[in-house]
Amino acid sequence: MAVSCSLFTCPLQGNIAAPKTLECYKEFMCYPSNLSFKQSGCTKPVYQTHPRLLHCSKLSEWEQTDRFLQKDGLQCHGLEVENAPSFSVGKKFQLEDVIEAQQFDRDILSAIFEVARKMEKIEKNSPGSQILKGYLMATLFYEPSTRTRLSFESAMKRLGGEVLTTENAREFSSAAKGETLEDTIRTVEGYSDIIVMRHFESGAARRAAATAGIPVINAGDGPGQHPTQALLDVYTIEREVGKLDGIKVALVGDLANGRTVRSLAYLLAKYQDVKIYFVSPDVVKMKDDIKDYLTSRGVEWEESADLKEVASNCDVVYQTRIQKERFGERIDLYKKARGKYIVDQAVMDVMQKDAVVLHPLPRLDEITVDVDRDPRAAYFRQAKNGLYIRMALLKLLLLGW
Amino acid sequence: MAVSCSLFTCPLQGNIAAPKTLECYKEFMCYPSNLSFKQSGCTKPVYQTHPRLLHCSKLSEWEQTDRFLQKDGLQCHGLEVENAPSFSVGKKFQLEDVIEAQQFDRDILSAIFEVARKMEKIEKNSPGSQILKGYLMATLFYEPSTRTRLSFESAMKRLGGEVLTTENAREFSSAAKGETLEDTIRTVEGYSDIIVMRHFESGAARRAAATAGIPVINAGDGPGQHPTQALLDVYTIEREVGKLDGIKVALVGDLANGRTVRSLAYLLAKYQDVKIYFVSPDVVKMKDDIKDYLTSRGVEWEESADLKEVASNCDVVYQTRIQKERFGERIDLYKKARGKYIVDQAVMDVMQKDAVVLHPLPRLDEITVDVDRDPRAAYFRQAKNGLYIRMALLKLLLLGW
Amino acid sequence: MAVSCSLFTCPLQGNIAAPKTLECYKEFMCYPSNLSFKQSGCTKPVYQTHPRLLHCSKLSEWEQTDRFLQKDGLQCHGLEVENAPSFSVGKKFQLEDVIEAQQFDRDILSAIFEVARKMEKIEKNSPGSQILKGYLMATLFYEPSTRTRLSFESAMKRLGGEVLTTENAREFSSAAKGETLEDTIRTVEGYSDIIVMRHFESGAARRAAATAGIPVINAGDGPGQHPTQALLDVYTIEREVGKLDGIKVALVGDLANGRTVRSLAYLLAKYQDVKIYFVSPDVVKMKDDIKDYLTSRGVEWEESADLKEVASNCDVVYQTRIQKERFGERIDLYKKARGKYIVDQAVMDVMQKDAVVLHPLPRLDEITVDVDRDPRAAYFRQAKNGLYIRMALLKLLLLGW
Repeated sequence: MAVSCSLFTCPLQGNIAAPKTLECYKEFMCYPSNLSFKQSGCTKPVYQTHPRLLHCSKLSEWEQTDRFLQKDGLQCHGLEVENAPSFSVGKKFQLEDVIEAQQFDRDILSAIFEVARKMEKIEKNSPGSQILKGYLMATLFYEPSTRTRLSFESAMKRLGGEVLTTENAREFSSAAKGETLEDTIRTVEGYSDIIVMRHFESGAARRAAATAGIPVINAGDGPGQHPTQALLDVYTIEREVGKLDGIKVALVGDLANGRTVRSLAYLLAKYQDVKIYFVSPDVVKMKDDIKDYLTSRGVEWEESADLKEVASNCDVVYQTRIQKERFGERIDLYKKARGKYIVDQAVMDVMQKDAVVLHPLPRLDEITVDVDRDPRAAYFRQAKNGLYIRMALLKLLLLGW
Repeated sequence: MAVSCSLFTCPLQGNIAAPKTLECYKEFMCYPSNLSFKQSGCTKPVYQTHPRLLHCSKLSEWEQTDRFLQKDGLQCHGLEVENAPSFSVGKKFQLEDVIEAQQFDRDILSAIFEVARKMEKIEKNSPGSQILKGYLMATLFYEPSTRTRLSFESAMKRLGGEVLTTENAREFSSAAKGETLEDTIRTVEGYSDIIVMRHFESGAARRAAATAGIPVINAGDGPGQHPTQALLDVYTIEREVGKLDGIKVALVGDLANGRTVRSLAYLLAKYQDVKIYFVSPDVVKMKDDIKDYLTSRGVEWEESADLKEVASNCDVVYQTRIQKERFGERIDLYKKARGKYIVDQAVMDVMQKDAVVLHPLPRLDEITVDVDRDPRAAYFRQAKNGLYIRMALLKLLLLGW
Repeated sequence: MAVSCSLFTCPLQGNIAAPKTLECYKEFMCYPSNLSFKQSGCTKPVYQTHPRLLHCSKLSEWEQTDRFLQKDGLQCHGLEVENAPSFSVGKKFQLEDVIEAQQFDRDILSAIFEVARKMEKIEKNSPGSQILKGYLMATLFYEPSTRTRLSFESAMKRLGGEVLTTENAREFSSAAKGETLEDTIRTVEGYSDIIVMRHFESGAARRAAATAGIPVINAGDGPGQHPTQALLDVYTIEREVGKLDGIKVALVGDLANGRTVRSLAYLLAKYQDVKIYFVSPDVVKMKDDIKDYLTSRGVEWEESADLKEVASNCDVVYQTRIQKERFGERIDLYKKARGKYIVDQAVMDVMQKDAVVLHPLPRLDEITVDVDRDPRAAYFRQAKNGLYIRMALLKLLLLGW
């Protein structure tokens, strides 16, 4: 959805939601801000049930669409106060696309996590939720990523929604004939209600969102962003450790190339009294941009070459895979780096009783298989949390808070 | 469905439909024609709710199937007169397969478009129609075409139906082991209620339909037919221009290889006082067979090298992509042809206020991007119309009129 | 589901099923065996509604999950006697995974076939069953097999369930990065309720089942097993011939490489007075292990080079394709073998009136096309039976008997 946050400066926008589940609350009636809607001649209250209707350029049209059932009595409904998420009313927290980890502040993370916890319950209920029944998600994957795709598709289907799949859009689609991403998006948005896109080029998700009149979720764009992974990482830490303020986190392995650890460091900086340890082979050290950012935010960090000592001290050991594909022909360097920091039983033995080991997966041998049996090995629960986060985002983008 | 039109010469056949949505109308009671049903010993009225039941060779069986719920009171229901599509009763208009543009006459086009307009409303309604709930569509694609596949799958799911997908049947399926298309169809028809097939060989769809006991839709068979594209093109012209009789249409670009423009020319010949302009580089001129056909049907046409003059004169400018893949090694010829006729702002400036630009997509640079903002740029609406046409066809083939 | 049969030695386990469809029967109350559940401290009755809850290591947890709606009144429900399948109570017949043909005895085959016959009725009913609504099946295919995949996905969808698809897990998934099968399974089980896996390595299905906390169905693992094909073959013989005891079966074609004929011979040995004829070119004769097995079970068998004489004598002629891919560069041997035993009209002419021809498909020219018209050509009905068998297995694994 191209319109994005800047157009919706109306402070109550975020609370606007579907009438079936929410009661009308008169103080939440809202009129569009001058900035955006005057252009399209709209002077009526805005009603954000169906994000697909909110093309700025078509505002005069959506009032006439049949999809909006109560068009004659256009009203703005909001969450009642007691149901509202725990962030201050008046802040800009509406969610229209999920493009990068940086778009989330502490309040919106907290709100998303609250929804994700509800999703855990929904997922365990039989025979399954139908809250997204009638909604269609298009998974537009320009490079394959079975794990991420299945997670999103499971999330959609667990909520009763339906899916259109392209596993290999790069080869198969009109892109091979030279069609622009923008044209593809304009076509696909006609067939679906939300687009989940994986692309090989950094920035592709932002371009897609700028084009689409429906929500876009970035499922990874090249070396760029993979925001839902960052969200599930933070969510898992909160679920496993019980808090985010005051935690100590070791980031281990390929810190130069791993976009997960970079995004995680970025998000952790939003919390109080966090301390981060970087433990990595010299060739794949954390880059200065993140270090500088942490410093600028007052986050304490240090580099260490002693995994055991760090592990004994931390709440979270976040291990990552050394990415062979980044080493090119320097297989010798790769092999040396790969074997350097392994999480094995010896590391587990020094870890605290309530600490956890995380890993974005896939895992090779940087965590030994015998560790799996340890209850502190949280990486498969972490993968499962990805489902809940994606269910939450789909719910929020399609139905609102 | 192999039985096809010729067997159903009973004049009222086409009006037979599901009892839930239609009222019984005694004059529409019909008995099978001598030609077809005597062979199978059936002397009861025919009831066309479930096309899958209408195997001619199994007519005695379908009365016993559980799927037919009112088997004890076999009756023939029809549309009431005021609900009937706008074609004369007595004409042969039933739809059993969609194989080629030529199978549609003016009346059946009009009837399909009427259903498509209803589908526009259904698609915009929340939470989505369920009229095809319980039906399974198999998309059997022997060559990839993500755009067409997603359009069909979206159509099916918007109506509550389900989909089995094969994106790359040529490589993956038993075809690689030497299985005939006929054998594949006989297997797939056991798993689904309707088959949408894309194939690399001209005539494959007809062979599939001749084998299958369930409806088959041709989603493109090699250089042959792509009838749903032809239907959505004509539907778009009617929706955008408001009429089909008396219109002036410019076909621009690759007229030699483009099956869309060839099918469109064919269908336009069914309307009154149509004038067609051909504007194309010399190497990809419209072939004589279509020209001769138009002449034989009394359709006025002319060739022109002046796109602006033609555009200023037409209701529809139908631009197409020069297909590089047809030029082989003659890249020089391709480049020359590709740049010759571009729809840009200068062309838009001379076009009439109510005229529209169409394009089957994907588009390269034969329409410049700045044209997209012009309300007369109808090609993305055209792509969306493909959804409605396909919804209409699925509904008609599975449930009847 | 890793726990598998050995843990559930409680004799009544198999009868435990969902409370909605079954009445409580006090004598069926069961406590977990000492072997398995004491470890997790569980002393309450076990209730097998949702196989996903039966992680042995998490037994104390599942009592708290929301998915189990009657958690406060934990009880063990069973089939009433009059609804029970026709095998003796007390036998171990519960179904937790489908890994190999050998796991089925005569009683369980009979019980599965009883469910499959019910599925035939369900499949023909409109608008389709919803008994698996809310359940998600992951089709994890490490090598493509469109026919098998579509059959499973159709089975799931005909019962109202949903599907996550990977057609080419080998290339696309994390496997390419070196992830173990076990790690992949641990991730995928978090996204779905049942896994249908096709793999290129013999034994892969067993490894997956040993890891997964949800049911796993083997859809073929390399040269190893393809148990659902074996089940549908036996089911088809029973449906077509009307019995399994006392039948005469000719296995024709590639008996050395065809896993279908090997599994079929194995399963037929469970029935009384079966006689098996092997008719094959010398280079692809049935191997000694199966012959020895049949002899050890008292099953009569003989080899013959006269297809017509055998066919005139049998209830079932099971033809198979000579697998070119097994001959490597010896194309001459392949060609010679391929043409040797063809089922054509001349063979049909000598066959008995009630005998049938089967074939696992795909078929090349080892059965001539003119035979298709003969009512005794049962191979397409056989393919359809695969749907019913898979529907039955999905129902049994997810909901119980």
